[in-house]
Amino acid sequence: MSLITVGTMAFDAIETPFGKIDKIVGGSAIYVAYAASNFVKPVQQISIVGYDFPEEEMEELRKRGVHLDGVEIIKDKKSFFWSGRYHEDMNSRDTLITDLNVLADFDPKIPDSYQGAEFLMLGNLMPKLQLNVIQELKKRPKFIVMDTMNFWMETAMHDLKIVLKYIDMLMLNDAEARQLTGQYSLVKAAKIILTLGPKFLIIKKGEHGALLFHNDEVFFAPALPLEDVFDPTGAGDTFAGGFIGHLAKTGDISFENMKRAIIVGSAMASFCVEKFGPTRLKEINKDDIDRRIQQFKDLVSFEFELV
Amino acid sequence: MSLITVGTMAFDAIETPFGKIDKIVGGSAIYVAYAASNFVKPVQQISIVGYDFPEEEMEELRKRGVHLDGVEIIKDKKSFFWSGRYHEDMNSRDTLITDLNVLADFDPKIPDSYQGAEFLMLGNLMPKLQLNVIQELKKRPKFIVMDTMNFWMETAMHDLKIVLKYIDMLMLNDAEARQLTGQYSLVKAAKIILTLGPKFLIIKKGEHGALLFHNDEVFFAPALPLEDVFDPTGAGDTFAGGFIGHLAKTGDISFENMKRAIIVGSAMASFCVEKFGPTRLKEINKDDIDRRIQQFKDLVSFEFELV
Repeated sequence: MSLITVGTMAFDAIETPFGKIDKIVGGSAIYVAYAASNFVKPVQQISIVGYDFPEEEMEELRKRGVHLDGVEIIKDKKSFFWSGRYHEDMNSRDTLITDLNVLADFDPKIPDSYQGAEFLMLGNLMPKLQLNVIQELKKRPKFIVMDTMNFWMETAMHDLKIVLKYIDMLMLNDAEARQLTGQYSLVKAAKIILTLGPKFLIIKKGEHGALLFHNDEVFFAPALPLEDVFDPTGAGDTFAGGFIGHLAKTGDISFENMKRAIIVGSAMASFCVEKFGPTRLKEINKDDIDRRIQQFKDLVSFEFELV
Repeated sequence: MSLITVGTMAFDAIETPFGKIDKIVGGSAIYVAYAASNFVKPVQQISIVGYDFPEEEMEELRKRGVHLDGVEIIKDKKSFFWSGRYHEDMNSRDTLITDLNVLADFDPKIPDSYQGAEFLMLGNLMPKLQLNVIQELKKRPKFIVMDTMNFWMETAMHDLKIVLKYIDMLMLNDAEARQLTGQYSLVKAAKIILTLGPKFLIIKKGEHGALLFHNDEVFFAPALPLEDVFDPTGAGDTFAGGFIGHLAKTGDISFENMKRAIIVGSAMASFCVEKFGPTRLKEINKDDIDRRIQQFKDLVSFEFELV
């Protein structure tokens, strides 16, 4: 099975209570690719970068089975740049700088070689662009996951609601679910979102785990309790990459398999936060991942015979 | 197996975004008793009330196998009274009134009929009083659980640290764990607390579930995602009551059985928040509880064969 991912490839500057880094590769499609490529090949990337995006990073991705035919390189502009500072609790952050650069021109095109992909991960982008991608695909993928954010709810809600009708799963965080629906209760918010188009919904709660909703079913995956969250940047995208990577690897979109996929996503995200940016994701191998998944099993598994 | 519970029996006035009640029975020992009595009899209550505490409530407790020989009735004083208002998110609240009344004179005594109990639940009280209870027991219980709160860390930390040396398990919330240790990371906080006396630790995270720590092991129990949390008052004590009730029922203090106990506690707490005060706890029966425990199993159970 193949997977198309659409999103940003960027530079980030990050400040956390634990340290500071002035320039590191980032962007949603970077995290999705590093996570998903552990499970499925090819990962077919759609993004845009400037003249300054490092060829070594491209090579690193290629080595992992990430196809870059869909990554446009703009020769006279810089790559997207984001800079942020995390608060003491690591759950909230201030955005210091957002330099769109090449991203202002992003008009995603699907290379012919990508056509026919079974899985599509639409990273957080302007809803119109997300819709364009869906409509450019000659054959509808078996499963389409979409990420979004509060900014689009404030500036492009109309378009956002149109895209929702075309996707299978929406993935957003708790604050965004509340904003989208005006409901504080996540259970009520989920019920509303499941009437807007997607048949599946994941609400990410950061260090408090993630909830999967489908019809009247709900599944909860915890986050791994860690001694330190060093840098949360990209954890949500890494979660998404692990999730859809597992789905694409198995080709199985049953609710039971989505439970496994959400655990895989949580495991990948737990690596992501251990070092700056995607650093840790480049170091781990299958054994590390399997051990981490086992930790998740141990964390929540219990035997209970009701008599 | 029998269980001694020590704590308050009181009146509460509660205001939530969903409603308001001027006077309802409450207090830690009330919630522990209503939860634990589903699993173990007798529950041997130690508390203090005034002339105004309703005999019907006492009768209701007796019917459930709660012994009240250890509940002192002060004929010329009123019962402890607490009044609070919950914020929109239901995770934080303002205390409006705290009238100690009889609680100012509380000097818990153990009736002879309670001696020999295998389990002891020390509700949140002045640490000196908690220590007195332990020292008045002729035979050390098999398992002692203690609750506490930030107020005692601010006013009686020295005494609190002494009590910690005598107990088996400390139960507190995330903010309190951070305050007790000065560590933001709950994993680091847990490591420190486990050097202070208790061999087991539960950190309650409200709607985000609860963590159980022992040596290098950790277990996580989610809270049930609910449409509405109507009134969180007493949820932590109800959790404690369900937890120790299951331990006392089974007599098994293995880590594996504590996992089950923490699920039982979470299930009981999920009922508690459905109506004002302990109202819902008085309505439910074994079938309701079993169905709720099954919901918890469904919520987190997944099959994952690592290959």
